[in-house]
Amino acid sequence: MAIVDVTVIPIGTESPSVSSYVAEVHHILKKYEEEGEIHFQLTPMNTIIEGELSTLLKVIQEIHESPFQKGIQRVATNIRIDDRRDKVSTMEGKLSSVQSKLNK
Amino acid sequence: MAIVDVTVIPIGTESPSVSSYVAEVHHILKKYEEEGEIHFQLTPMNTIIEGELSTLLKVIQEIHESPFQKGIQRVATNIRIDDRRDKVSTMEGKLSSVQSKLNK
Amino acid sequence: MAIVDVTVIPIGTESPSVSSYVAEVHHILKKYEEEGEIHFQLTPMNTIIEGELSTLLKVIQEIHESPFQKGIQRVATNIRIDDRRDKVSTMEGKLSSVQSKLNK
Amino acid sequence: MAIVDVTVIPIGTESPSVSSYVAEVHHILKKYEEEGEIHFQLTPMNTIIEGELSTLLKVIQEIHESPFQKGIQRVATNIRIDDRRDKVSTMEGKLSSVQSKLNK
Repeated sequence: MAIVDVTVIPIGTESPSVSSYVAEVHHILKKYEEEGEIHFQLTPMNTIIEGELSTLLKVIQEIHESPFQKGIQRVATNIRIDDRRDKVSTMEGKLSSVQSKLNK
Repeated sequence: MAIVDVTVIPIGTESPSVSSYVAEVHHILKKYEEEGEIHFQLTPMNTIIEGELSTLLKVIQEIHESPFQKGIQRVATNIRIDDRRDKVSTMEGKLSSVQSKLNK
Repeated sequence: MAIVDVTVIPIGTESPSVSSYVAEVHHILKKYEEEGEIHFQLTPMNTIIEGELSTLLKVIQEIHESPFQKGIQRVATNIRIDDRRDKVSTMEGKLSSVQSKLNK
Repeated sequence: MAIVDVTVIPIGTESPSVSSYVAEVHHILKKYEEEGEIHFQLTPMNTIIEGELSTLLKVIQEIHESPFQKGIQRVATNIRIDDRRDKVSTMEGKLSSVQSKLNK
């Protein structure tokens, strides 16, 4: 399992506000989560998604596509993949691993 | 005010685990937060920091520096800056702006 | 057609040098280029690849996979996608568009 | 010395074309290069800059600022820092290190 952290920026929006596009992304992620394929979390700066890497890349392609559906002509998507294979890595596990070191 | 989303990756660590470095980053951010200069939030993939851009760049330089203090010889830091000036932009405001669109 | 800009960072390498992993990535890209599926360019900081988005994501998954083949247990891959659909966007076209504005 | 790789995306531009903003960034970098503070290189996807980290962060703040001067209200800047201290790291050195491995 991998964890990715994604931002999708529509370019040429007239308005500086892009939250309606983020909401659309959220709907797509919700659908995949209900199907049990991913877990995700919205932060103030990005969307963090956990799942099999090939699933994640499929999901990323779909959310990258979504602003084009709304008439946008250019999209800049930024992805950080964190893929660890010596142990099961989850969003929760990563946070608690740091937390345990903070309490020492 | 700007919001940044930062990852600091120490290269050449022998172990794939880097959480002790993240904990150190957290201590630095705690200090700045207690001085009232920034707000920050740890997510499973990065650290999100809110503050004046010049302060944020100073803080980023300090957290980027921290793995070198522990003997690491190479650090890859990745920063996304989101800087909006038509209205006050905060971590909380960004999330609730998306949330309000989700409930429609 | 889209253009992506990718960095693949192996974590837990003992040495701060990662150029042998970059060379491996280069071999994979060479193969796809010879098959006419992509164009690519190596810069001092990343690899820039041009092609159909679905092809690019397939190629990215393969280059992300390559350090694991060499025994690495964790890989951090960073991807910027620039996808423009109002006109054909190529690596060459993007550079010359900026260049033409510089000479004014 | 560090090397950074930067993209500056103006948000709310009406047009999907942002090359005039990139040209402005280029003028700022030219000025710093003529003063001997940095070296830089324009690629189809980003700008790569080499120099002292504190100088680089100052330069990045200035190029991040430039779209606001032209009336843009929101800017998304993405920065990758590669900072290596066990040897002098330059843009040229990094490329030739990979190249030497390719020819084996």
